[in-house]
Amino acid sequence: MSPTVDLNADLGEGFAVWQLGDDEAMLEVVTSANLACGFHAGDPALLLRACRAAAEAGVRVGAQVSYRDLAGFGRRFIDVTAEDLTADVIYQIGALQAIAHAAGTTVSYVKPHGALYNTIVHHTDQAAAVAAAVHAVDPTLPVLGLSGSEFFAAATRLGLRTVAEAFADRAYQPDGTLVSRREPGAVLHDPAQIAERVFTMVNADEVQAVDGSTIPVTVESVCVHGDSPGAVQIAHAVRDRLAGAGVQLRAFS
Amino acid sequence: MSPTVDLNADLGEGFAVWQLGDDEAMLEVVTSANLACGFHAGDPALLLRACRAAAEAGVRVGAQVSYRDLAGFGRRFIDVTAEDLTADVIYQIGALQAIAHAAGTTVSYVKPHGALYNTIVHHTDQAAAVAAAVHAVDPTLPVLGLSGSEFFAAATRLGLRTVAEAFADRAYQPDGTLVSRREPGAVLHDPAQIAERVFTMVNADEVQAVDGSTIPVTVESVCVHGDSPGAVQIAHAVRDRLAGAGVQLRAFS
Amino acid sequence: MSPTVDLNADLGEGFAVWQLGDDEAMLEVVTSANLACGFHAGDPALLLRACRAAAEAGVRVGAQVSYRDLAGFGRRFIDVTAEDLTADVIYQIGALQAIAHAAGTTVSYVKPHGALYNTIVHHTDQAAAVAAAVHAVDPTLPVLGLSGSEFFAAATRLGLRTVAEAFADRAYQPDGTLVSRREPGAVLHDPAQIAERVFTMVNADEVQAVDGSTIPVTVESVCVHGDSPGAVQIAHAVRDRLAGAGVQLRAFS
Amino acid sequence: MSPTVDLNADLGEGFAVWQLGDDEAMLEVVTSANLACGFHAGDPALLLRACRAAAEAGVRVGAQVSYRDLAGFGRRFIDVTAEDLTADVIYQIGALQAIAHAAGTTVSYVKPHGALYNTIVHHTDQAAAVAAAVHAVDPTLPVLGLSGSEFFAAATRLGLRTVAEAFADRAYQPDGTLVSRREPGAVLHDPAQIAERVFTMVNADEVQAVDGSTIPVTVESVCVHGDSPGAVQIAHAVRDRLAGAGVQLRAFS
Repeated sequence: MSPTVDLNADLGEGFAVWQLGDDEAMLEVVTSANLACGFHAGDPALLLRACRAAAEAGVRVGAQVSYRDLAGFGRRFIDVTAEDLTADVIYQIGALQAIAHAAGTTVSYVKPHGALYNTIVHHTDQAAAVAAAVHAVDPTLPVLGLSGSEFFAAATRLGLRTVAEAFADRAYQPDGTLVSRREPGAVLHDPAQIAERVFTMVNADEVQAVDGSTIPVTVESVCVHGDSPGAVQIAHAVRDRLAGAGVQLRAFS
Repeated sequence: MSPTVDLNADLGEGFAVWQLGDDEAMLEVVTSANLACGFHAGDPALLLRACRAAAEAGVRVGAQVSYRDLAGFGRRFIDVTAEDLTADVIYQIGALQAIAHAAGTTVSYVKPHGALYNTIVHHTDQAAAVAAAVHAVDPTLPVLGLSGSEFFAAATRLGLRTVAEAFADRAYQPDGTLVSRREPGAVLHDPAQIAERVFTMVNADEVQAVDGSTIPVTVESVCVHGDSPGAVQIAHAVRDRLAGAGVQLRAFS
Repeated sequence: MSPTVDLNADLGEGFAVWQLGDDEAMLEVVTSANLACGFHAGDPALLLRACRAAAEAGVRVGAQVSYRDLAGFGRRFIDVTAEDLTADVIYQIGALQAIAHAAGTTVSYVKPHGALYNTIVHHTDQAAAVAAAVHAVDPTLPVLGLSGSEFFAAATRLGLRTVAEAFADRAYQPDGTLVSRREPGAVLHDPAQIAERVFTMVNADEVQAVDGSTIPVTVESVCVHGDSPGAVQIAHAVRDRLAGAGVQLRAFS
Repeated sequence: MSPTVDLNADLGEGFAVWQLGDDEAMLEVVTSANLACGFHAGDPALLLRACRAAAEAGVRVGAQVSYRDLAGFGRRFIDVTAEDLTADVIYQIGALQAIAHAAGTTVSYVKPHGALYNTIVHHTDQAAAVAAAVHAVDPTLPVLGLSGSEFFAAATRLGLRTVAEAFADRAYQPDGTLVSRREPGAVLHDPAQIAERVFTMVNADEVQAVDGSTIPVTVESVCVHGDSPGAVQIAHAVRDRLAGAGVQLRAFS
């Protein structure tokens, strides 16, 4: 049986007149679209159009929930209480669910965005708050995130399905965490190299860390970026490399 | 068979540290709570608490959708396009649906708020946009509004159930519309007078207009205000007058 | 003595991670930069960078004040009260003044944005509210706008200096107002034609209306757009045509 | 010569229809009013009214700058970059300066609010960012804050005047910092006890810490709260105790 993997990317991240990334092009590549929910990006009309486009392209939709921080694009840690965070996340998922429903599709998973994503790798309270929110909305909703994170621990305790993702264009530390964006070499740019790397991740469950060592990596979904220069080209390179090797690109179930 | 009527009021209209009205007291009086959805008031954590309190009190919850205008409390007309308005309303209903679900209850109807409510009495495009939003979310969701409005016309065309409401403390023009708040005598303040008036509306389907004439009025639900001085007292007076006359207070079905 | 004219364009209209237009390129062309003030676009850090760039380029800075409507980019009429509007405009001008000061420059004029600009051509109360705001901040601040507008009438009554602007790429009605963007032919796209048209406006104080008739036009400043495809090219064409004919491009005084 | 001290309180902390505290009553007590600037509270029209009321009452106005966090009332730490924070603070001060000017008064000092206040006691980068903002707007603007804080260190390096404040109703640790609000006994409630405590602070430059020890305290201004139950009563008790002992209540210079 041929191996399968999911390809996910962030979409719907414009706001008002502002656009970000090339959603149309990315919908031709990915199998899962992480749609903003209005707290870091994504006004409702834009999200409705994005859900319709995803439905038409046969791409599955997920809720990319965030801190309430439009001015910071959700990239700044906010010391929000667990009570507020849980309610904020429930609100966002519900809003996107209705939008998706109106577009003829459905929210199939939840993925935290930006600073929230990074924070709940370690922050026990906020991790539990996000997991509780997903569970409160629908205990059958899978969550996308980092293997070994506090978020996954909290989600697992609640019986949520966790889907481990790997990052196509990011360098890894020997301990399996990502190299900080503030350090040189944190982000890879060469499409061919990135594609090869992803193939190894998917095929051999391992990746080469920055120190040259080979480390294990768990990956049910590969995150490709949609908003950087060359993003679409990289996404295509990854897709082509995987497809060429007989890896089936398919949304996780 | 004894006549029945619904009593509705706006709740959940605080934001962050700010409170408005006495939700707890109003939940003892009303049968339907119009909860803000975050666009004119209502942060998610407050809404979650409000939904829980409503569920506990056995009060049904509705989505009070608004223009996106926190700084104006949704009281200012905004010339938003139909496309944007439809998406904004879908987003709000969905957000509250998830919050309500997490609180063990459900959104049972939709009522537009403030300037949006007043605008879609006459504004064909915006009326159609709001009706389309409700229909897109759930074609079985009733809408609360003004009998004879463009909103009800649009809702009826889509097959939505319309629930006509009357205002306990507002003066009526001979043509059945409300006297503008900018004119003297637009708002009534005497609890006994208001209670008597509501009883006549419910019992005889008529009300005395500002010119002294008696006009017909359609009422399945009576709106009492929760945020003005004396609001709770007026609400109790209305409830007691109706109950004393054998009118059954019950959420519309 | 050679004729002079000012060239103005909207800049600083990004927000958070979102960009709009090519500010750097436009600063090489215009003599006045209308900077957003945070209500329709423009976060403070972006505005500080924009003010520094304008100062470095020797381009004068103006405050482009707007309705509070980030989600609508200030393009939707809002029925705000005169009291609120005056305070909103004072707030915006003051915010940009401090930012400009920190960047080593100063706010030299005020220009309303989008729906507010269009509304106060006719809306007496809002026109007076905006003029009152400018006057309250600094009675020597000039205002940029449409000749013959209610805004200019209100500004003149308060003793404010009014600077009439013409639009490089917009079609005119025979009565001197602009053809609505919703009608075909409202926006011109050919750089050479636009440049020639502007030259005639500046040189002969007249322009050809959509019906072919020649109408008078008052112009101390010409507005070129910075956010549409080809905007930079059009701006250069206008600048080159004027400079080539000996018209001096200079900020109004 | 009789000792003098300033009494400051937070005012203008409503938003839209929402009110907080009793500004009118507090203006009869304090000598300095810390006005919100729109980022955690305070819409422009409310601020304009508050500035007018302060001017009429002869109370000096300061800018209470905050993280951009209306939904959290500025009470949540946000990991904002120094560049963004500096611009955010400049923007807020400028906005209030224009509002104050329109009301016939002027911004006389800057006091950080809530989580920002607490953060820059220790957070070197954010402390420097706030100090840089004040300096960029006007190097003669005093800053109100905690003696010994990183904020004061940064302000002093830039040559800003620092004004040390003490809290009337808060318990102190033996090291001079405040007892966290999450611990019992952090906030005092008895007006007579609070008044006596403040008198000792002002008269003897010392206060009794939670462990019973007497510690030195530097105080040029005393902060009284305006938004808690009994706040106005406490403020009056403090004022009366000081005035009765011959302490002159006067805005710092």
